[in-house]
Order: sequence, then C-alpha cells, then structure tokens
Amino acid sequence: MGLFKAGSMVYKPVKEVDLSRESSEFYLHANVKAPRMAGILVKIFAWFLESRIFGTFLLYILKGNNLIHKLIRDAELEEPPVYNPLHPFEDLKEQDVTCIGSDLTPSEQVKLAVDCLPVSSGKTLNGSDLHFRRWTISDYSRAYSCGEITPLVVAERFLAAVGESSKPPLQMSFFINYDAEDILRQATASTHRYKQGLPISVLDGVPIAIKDEIDCKPYPTTGGTKWLHKRRPCTDDAHCVERLRLCGAILVGKTNMHELGAGTSGINPHYGATRNPYDPSRISGGSSSGSAAAVAAGLCPVALGVDGGGSVRIPASLCGVVGLKPTFGRLPHTGVLPLNWTVGMVGILAGSIEDAFIVYAAMNGELQLHPSPTLPKICFPLLNKTTPINIKLAKSVEWFNDCSDDIRTCCNNALDKLYKRHGWKTVEVTIPEIEAMRLAHYLTIGSECSTSLSSHLQKMNFAELGWDARVALAVYGAFSGKEYIKAQQIRNRQMQFHKNIFSQADVIVTPTTGVTAYSILNDALKTGELDYVNGAALVRYSIAGNFLGLPAVTVPVGYDKTGLPIGLQFIGRPWSEATLIHIAFAMQALCISVYKKPEVFYDLLQKNEVHQEICEAKELNGTRPTSGLNV
Amino acid sequence: MGLFKAGSMVYKPVKEVDLSRESSEFYLHANVKAPRMAGILVKIFAWFLESRIFGTFLLYILKGNNLIHKLIRDAELEEPPVYNPLHPFEDLKEQDVTCIGSDLTPSEQVKLAVDCLPVSSGKTLNGSDLHFRRWTISDYSRAYSCGEITPLVVAERFLAAVGESSKPPLQMSFFINYDAEDILRQATASTHRYKQGLPISVLDGVPIAIKDEIDCKPYPTTGGTKWLHKRRPCTDDAHCVERLRLCGAILVGKTNMHELGAGTSGINPHYGATRNPYDPSRISGGSSSGSAAAVAAGLCPVALGVDGGGSVRIPASLCGVVGLKPTFGRLPHTGVLPLNWTVGMVGILAGSIEDAFIVYAAMNGELQLHPSPTLPKICFPLLNKTTPINIKLAKSVEWFNDCSDDIRTCCNNALDKLYKRHGWKTVEVTIPEIEAMRLAHYLTIGSECSTSLSSHLQKMNFAELGWDARVALAVYGAFSGKEYIKAQQIRNRQMQFHKNIFSQADVIVTPTTGVTAYSILNDALKTGELDYVNGAALVRYSIAGNFLGLPAVTVPVGYDKTGLPIGLQFIGRPWSEATLIHIAFAMQALCISVYKKPEVFYDLLQKNEVHQEICEAKELNGTRPTSGLNV
Repeated sequence: MGLFKAGSMVYKPVKEVDLSRESSEFYLHANVKAPRMAGILVKIFAWFLESRIFGTFLLYILKGNNLIHKLIRDAELEEPPVYNPLHPFEDLKEQDVTCIGSDLTPSEQVKLAVDCLPVSSGKTLNGSDLHFRRWTISDYSRAYSCGEITPLVVAERFLAAVGESSKPPLQMSFFINYDAEDILRQATASTHRYKQGLPISVLDGVPIAIKDEIDCKPYPTTGGTKWLHKRRPCTDDAHCVERLRLCGAILVGKTNMHELGAGTSGINPHYGATRNPYDPSRISGGSSSGSAAAVAAGLCPVALGVDGGGSVRIPASLCGVVGLKPTFGRLPHTGVLPLNWTVGMVGILAGSIEDAFIVYAAMNGELQLHPSPTLPKICFPLLNKTTPINIKLAKSVEWFNDCSDDIRTCCNNALDKLYKRHGWKTVEVTIPEIEAMRLAHYLTIGSECSTSLSSHLQKMNFAELGWDARVALAVYGAFSGKEYIKAQQIRNRQMQFHKNIFSQADVIVTPTTGVTAYSILNDALKTGELDYVNGAALVRYSIAGNFLGLPAVTVPVGYDKTGLPIGLQFIGRPWSEATLIHIAFAMQALCISVYKKPEVFYDLLQKNEVHQEICEAKELNGTRPTSGLNV
Repeated sequence: MGLFKAGSMVYKPVKEVDLSRESSEFYLHANVKAPRMAGILVKIFAWFLESRIFGTFLLYILKGNNLIHKLIRDAELEEPPVYNPLHPFEDLKEQDVTCIGSDLTPSEQVKLAVDCLPVSSGKTLNGSDLHFRRWTISDYSRAYSCGEITPLVVAERFLAAVGESSKPPLQMSFFINYDAEDILRQATASTHRYKQGLPISVLDGVPIAIKDEIDCKPYPTTGGTKWLHKRRPCTDDAHCVERLRLCGAILVGKTNMHELGAGTSGINPHYGATRNPYDPSRISGGSSSGSAAAVAAGLCPVALGVDGGGSVRIPASLCGVVGLKPTFGRLPHTGVLPLNWTVGMVGILAGSIEDAFIVYAAMNGELQLHPSPTLPKICFPLLNKTTPINIKLAKSVEWFNDCSDDIRTCCNNALDKLYKRHGWKTVEVTIPEIEAMRLAHYLTIGSECSTSLSSHLQKMNFAELGWDARVALAVYGAFSGKEYIKAQQIRNRQMQFHKNIFSQADVIVTPTTGVTAYSILNDALKTGELDYVNGAALVRYSIAGNFLGLPAVTVPVGYDKTGLPIGLQFIGRPWSEATLIHIAFAMQALCISVYKKPEVFYDLLQKNEVHQEICEAKELNGTRPTSGLNV
C-alpha cells in the first residue's frame, strides 16, 4: 500500500506491491466515524449539511475523519486515472462453455440456455424434496405445459399474495407499483398460448418483477422517490425488460428500493421498509430490496435489480437467494435510470442459479450499442456436462475474515465442500488497498449520482426527498474535481492488482457481506436511517464488482445462529459469466440440502406430489413440455 | 445548442441539433469577464484567491460571471460523460498515402518518410530563393554530406547565436537550459559519422530543441518552474526524444515555456518572456513559446512542444512556423510531464511541413503502450505524387470570422488559393457550443493539472511559484466533481458533432488564433500577467484538437498590417495525420512566396549560391548525399 507521510498516503508504484500471501501490505479495517442516526437526528444533520457555511465545515470534518483526505485527496500516486471499467473483450477460452451467434432472438437464446441445463435438473431438485426449494422457471413451464395450472391462476395467486403481504401484520413493502389489470391481461395471453401448445419460451407465463429503477410499461419509474417519475416519464420498456417480454414472461410490477439507490438498508421512507422474508423484523438489504425479498418470498422465481455498489448481491445475500451481477457493459442499459455512468449494471436475483442463467441468456445481446470496440461473445456454461470443470480460487485472508464469526465459518465450510467434492484449491493472496478502493468508489458513485440528478435537484422541493437521501445527496455533491480524479487513479491501481490476481486464479472468493440482516428500528421508518458502520460492513466485498466492472455472483451457503441467510461471493475475470455460473451451480448443488423455507413464503404453484406424479408420467409418455416450445 | 432556462442552459439532444449552415444554433462570443492584471494587481488577486473564505467567494463570482455555472455546472444535458478522447483506430483509406510496418527503427521510418518527399523538394524551395526560406532538414543533411559544412561548425554557430540572443539588447529567452559541452560532444560524434560517410539518417547532425516539459538528458525538466525538477528528477530521455537521438539528431537544449503550461502568452517570470522573432516587443505565444521562437529564429529547423490547449499551434502561428499536433495517443508520452491526462499530446514545431513530417515519422511507433485495443497504422503521405489529392473543407462561418480583420482576410485568401489551384471546395457548416466546449476544456485541463501536481503543491513554498501560475492553480483547484463530470458530458456532445461534420468533409478549417502576437508590457515581466480576453482569443480555435483528441496542423499563410505572422489551421479526422500533412504541404506551396524573414534570424548554414552550386553539382555526379545514408 505504501506508508502514511505527513498525514497522507504515499502509494508505492503498482509493480512494487507484493500480492502474495506473505505480503507486508497491511489490511486497513473500515474506519467509519459516524454514529447511527435516525428520526429527528437525521433531520438536524440534514439541515446542517444543507446550510452553506456549516455544511461545508461539517463535510470537511467528516471527510477528514473518514480518511478520504488521507487515502484519496492528499494521496501521492503516480498512476494515471482510469475513468471507466469497460474491459476490452478477450476470448477467455473458458472450460465447458458454448458460445452462440449474435443474431438470435431472446427466445432462441433462452432455448439454447435451457439446452445447457442438466435434463435431470428438475428431478435432482425434486430428489431433495425433504428440503425446502423454491419453484424454478422450469417448474412453472412444466406445470403450465402439462396443464397442471395456468398462468392466469398463478397471476391471481400472485395478486392475492402481494395484497396479503402488503397489509398488516406483515407490511413487507415488496412493491412500489403493480397493476392487477395489466398482470391479468398478460397472464390471459400466456394461458392462451399454452392452450394452443405454443408457448414462446420456457419463460412464457413466468412472473418476473422489476426494480423500480428500470423502465417497464405501464408503470412510472420512481427510483424509490416521490418525484423523479414526474420529471422523467417512463415512455417505453427498458431494453432488458423488452427482451423478457418477448420471451412471454409476465412482468408483475415494480419492486421497492432504497431511495435513489443511495443506501443498502432497503428502508424507504415513502414506500415502506422492505422486510426480510426470513425475519420481517429485519432489513432485506438494498438497494434492490424488493426484488430480493419478492424472490425469497416465492412471489416470482426471478426479479431484476441494478448493482452500482453491491445493490443486487447484498439483498440477495441477506434474503437467501442468488444474485448475479454481469461484467460492466454486458447488458444493454437503455431505459435504466442513469444514477451513475461508470459503476452500475443490471443484475438478476433468482431462487436458483439455473433461473438466473436463463434470464441472463434472455437479456444478453443487443450489443450494437456496446462501447467496446470488439463486441463480447455470448457464452453459456454447459451445466449438463458430467465431468466438473477445474477451478482455482483466490482468497485474501484478512479481508475474507473481516466479517461475523457465523459468516466466516459458514463460508469456509462452503469452500471445504468445493475442495472435497471437486478438488478446487484455494490460493491465498493479498488484495491491497481495499478500504481506499471503497472510499474511491463511494466518491465516484456519489459524484456521478449528484451530477446526473443535478438538473432535477435545482428545481425541486427538497421536502419531497427522504431525510437519509437528503444527507446522501449533500455528501455526494461535496466532492471536488481533484478528489474525483484521484479516485480514478486508485481505480487504475486496482485494475492492475486484479489483473495480476486473475493471472494466478480463476475467481476471487469472499463472503458477500460482513454482517447478516440487521434489525429495522422504528425510528428509521419515517426518516430512513444513517448507519455507515453497518453500511460499510454490507458493501465490504461488493466494490470490485462495480468499481472495476468485474462480474460477480452470490450463492446462499447457509444461515447464522439466528437463522438469517449467508451468501458466498465469487468475483470473476471480465466477461467470464459462464465460468461464474458453472461455479455457482456447483456451490448451490453442495448447499441446497440445507436451504430453509423463509417465515414469509407464498407457493404460487402449490404443487403436491400427486400433480407432480401425473406430470412426470406425461413426460415419460413423450410429451415433455419443452418439446412443445416453438423455439 | 438549446436555450437558457431559469438562468441555466438546457441542451437539446445531439440528434436534434442542426449542423448545417442554416442552423438556428447561435454562436456565443467568448464572454470573458476579467480585467487584464499584472504587477501588484496579480499579487493582490492571488492573495485573495488563496485565502480560504475570500477565495471561495471570489471564485464563485468569477465562475458565475464567466458562464461556467450557466453553460456547465447547472446545464441540463442527457449525454453520458466521455472522459477520454482516445478514438478507436479506423482504417481511413486515405488518398495517396503509404502505410508502413510496425517493426521499423526510427531511422528506417525517417528514410521511408524522406522517400515520400518530392525529389525536387529542395530545388523548388531553391527556386524561390528570391523569397525568404528557412533551411530545412534536407538542407542540413545535404550540406553535411557534401562536406560544405560540419555539424560541429553548426553547433558552434548555434551556441554563439543563443548566447547573443540571450543577452541585451535582445534577451529573447528562447532557452531554459542548454549545455555547450553536451551539444559539442554530440556534434563531434555526428561530424565523425559524416566523415566516415555513415550518417545514421537525414536527421544526423540536425539541431533539435526540446520543450522543457519533456525529459531530455542531461537536463532537468523544469516545466518552466523553479521547483518541479527538484521533486521529479529527470532520469532518462523521454521516449520521443530517445527516438530522435537514435536518428543522430543533436539535442540542443530545453526551450522556455509558460510556467506549467498554465498560460498562452509565453511570459515566464523565472526564465524571461520569450520574445517574438518577428517583433521582440511582442509575445511568442505559448505554452511552447521557446520551441516556436527558436525555430522561427533559425536556431533549429525543428523543435518539440506539448499541446494541451493549443500550446504547440498557438506559438507556431504567432511565430510564423508550422505546428503539428497529432491525434491523442499517437505518440508515446513516456517521459513527458503528466500535467494532464486526457488533453495533451507531444507536437512538432518546424520551419516547413516536410520537416515536421520527417520528425513525426521518427517519433511515431512504440505503440505497444498504446491504450487503444487496435494499434493505429502508421501512414505517410506520398508528397511526391504529382496529381494532387481531392479535399473537402468544412468551415463554421461565424466561428471562423470571430477574429481580427487581417486574420479573416488572410485566411480567406488562403482558402481561395486552394480552390483556384486545386479546386478544393469549402462546405459551410455550423459547429455549435464552441464557448461551452472552451469552458469544459478549461475545467478539464485545470482539474487534471491541479490533481497531478497536488502532492507537490501540498509541500512546497508557494513563493517559488510565479504569480500568474499561483492564480491559475487557485482557479484549477476550485472545480467540483460535478463540474468536471458535466464537462465530460459536453465532451461527448462535441465528439458526436464532430463525427457528423467529418461525414461531410475531410477537414475543418479555421484561423489558428483570433489575434496575432500582442505586446509584452513591462509590468508583466516579473509577475506574469492575467489577460483572459487575449487568452480566450488565442485558444479560440485550438480546443477541439485537445478536448476531442483530433489531429491538427497550422501553416503560416501571411502577415497582418504590422508584419506579424498569421496561421491557418486544419483539424482532421482521428488518425488522419497523413492527409493533414498533404493539405499543409499544398497550403505551404501556395504561400511560400510571401514568407518574410523575421527581425531576429540566425543562419547557421550561412549558405550562399556558390556553395549551393558546388553541392548541387556533386549531387548530379551521383554523390547524392542521401545515397550515403546507411538506412
């Protein structure tokens, strides 16, 4: 890392930094100096920050206390800034993948993805019926195809379930908007297609929820606010949503989120605190809180989120579902709120890695708009191969261990399972300057967010903003050009460090979060809360995925003593989604037996063994549903 | 452009902006609200700016008055930021060029460049001997090869000339450093090579001066300051300098420059105001002031500069020489002071376009370090082709005309000559938002400069800085992250506008500056001066070359009523240097007959017709010097 000189950090040239396990680089624990604030305290704090004189002074103190001056503003470093984590596409020669043409329709790509799944996939899961499992896309598709149930019935059950979950005593606050009429219309059309034996794809009739940061007709895109949709009307589906619609998916509404994505608790003062299906007294995590919680609660097998600072992986981990954040620039971003430009990426929350994969396959493509000069190939993992691939994992020990005991133990056990079952070795490395990277990313996403919103903020009435968002925006707007550029110099260093790590290993493995879901306190409900200590613990392992544009996936691997889910994260090389899905699939298979049913769970298929038997029987008689798909 | 709303600019989406001649986009004349300051006034101003409270307030007023708030900070625009003007390489299929391999040595590339010159080149120029012309690289090479004179004698005359020019009454302040011993050592070695008939290349023994922003052994790199070299020792030649050394060029010292390149007057309080050879009471322009003036004065046929905001083209134009600024990323920047990261490029100042081309050829290559995924091809213009190429020029009329009457008339006459002689048509277009681009570039280069220097500035004694540099740095450090990012959004718009213009024409033509060299007032000598009005007029046409990374060349086309040089600028497509050289060559041929000898001029070859005859004769007898070159 270098050494503190005259109170500021002097960074060694990258080449001189030792990344081995024995490195002398010290691990700096997040040094967050800010008390938790909620209720009246947040209001007072916001007032101070927004006052010209006090605010400037206060922010100066805050930035100093939190090492932004030492590690960023006053730092001495030679590397030129790198402003954008878009990696030129390299052909990775991944094991057991198939790369597809660029001229396919979404449903054709879904078909190819389904062909990559083990035929026994469904059965394997059924094999573990003693244990809890969520119904997958193929469960829905099979149930529809063999007439066990219709999309219309599922839609009706969905609406009933959302209604119930929104009312007391639960008040889960999964959704910001859902339109019964629109949902039933889609379900009717899908039902009709199945009746004709002509479903569009395996996604036909499958309910999918969309984070309210992504355009989806007929809904406004609020970004979790009370005002943004008034200034920026939603005129069309976002590109990724349109591709799901083309596959026949039923878009079941806009999920709740942390206001403007400016936090990770998922407590929204306007639309309610999204509660954790595993313990409604706890947070769901954010910012894609509603998407994670809705999937965890069984309302849909898949939901979309956007991940600018762990916003998909964190709630996925806290809610015990899979979260996939693709490489920066991999998926089209047309129709996604531009809350930042260099860190965010559409991501997928799903009950299983297979379902995340199918939806990833549906959304991939349309890369004409892709800024990279060479268009990335679209490659799918051959999960049906019986011989497992060989993977080397990198682990930065001190960083890995900077989490709760339960998380550390649970994640290490998961790694042992991978080693015992597949012989996957873990190489210990040192990834330096993690805390500097967290601050540099915070500075970057903050500056970009306040810039992208500035023309709106100039005109609006701040009373329309939640109090914690007001504080966030005051801090976001306080960074200097110099601080922003220095943060990009730190980005350059980390790009080089990680390139080096990936020359030694296929993926970096970390816990997904440093803590599990913490309690929602009442004082936070109306004002939101400022909890930078828990916040830093939640994003601790997320930053490289955003700041460096690397793909990452989180898989549920167990639960803490209080029964709250724990996620394990794999961070991959640029464009290595196929390998990440391979790894997540292997990890899931080894943990699925311990998966627990959440306190709040809705079973839209209400499958029972009898139906199951009938269905299986039909299949054996050659009417395997997928064969009916006209793709 | 859009319209002012609530005091801030609302920019239309790029696609809706009309770039035709008939466009309704209005041309906003530079609205600089700051009085000229020098002497005690600059000191007081600097003190105010550096004081925490007053400074903040004063800067806020200044930025507001100068439309930075209206056009940038508070502007409403949709385009995402583009942080870097590095264009992916496209094969342009240019007319009459030859593209070379990437495995050649500098001297091999020089040989290929020389082969592209008309054999008669020297003669043509000799044909116009009634008129003034500077001796070219091939004049030196020929004179050396036929034994008319030796590099050692030239070196001695150079030292005598520099000595004389540095003393009263002239005090031209061309150089910051030159080491007689080192120069004579190089000259002796070169003389020896010619004696053996084994010169390395046509550059062997040719004196070349280097801007003091570029590393060149055995000199410190001061950047025009009294302190930077103490903090950043020069340990090796910059990459581009090393390549010239490998060709046998004599590196004759480090030229004067505006302190830190933070101005365009070339008045340096530490090393003297570089005076204009055409009128020593006038500025030379900057920041590469010494390089332009030394070439104009005949001390060397070529000198290197660095162009971050017109710093090569402006002094070239004011001193009546050629200035070539290549595409961003074209030449290796190793060993160049990192005063910015996204706008600067090494450039060439020369007495003729042929010489600029030869030195460009020598420095080109070593692109392994090039950040662009596809390495740009190196293409040379076939200037020896008799059939001229066909070129379409774009002219943004209001912008073009925003200069002194003499400049406007002179530049229009030059365009007429091109049309009459070659039939090159000029298409009238509208390039919008020029003033917004100038401010966005100022914000960008300022923020990057203060960031790159920040770790030094924290520790140094400000008394070591010139007063105008202190003011500049105070302003540079005052921009917010939001302002920096919005400037990059403006950059995106301009990249798209220019791409569109280049679909209609091969080059954009403008005057090089809005004014000719203005007077050096005595009060500026010790403190430097702040003259933002003249400054804005000097950089008026330079910005696209830096902010958008486009290649550009300036050619002397005449003189104003007081006999001061006027330059015409051609701005090309990314990577189109070969075409630009073609155009500049044609322009030069049509103007050479009017070129005037400057007041201060040193003739290092002291050629006379007799020698000339002998030399020519020798050539005719088959001992053509170039045939002696071992390349």
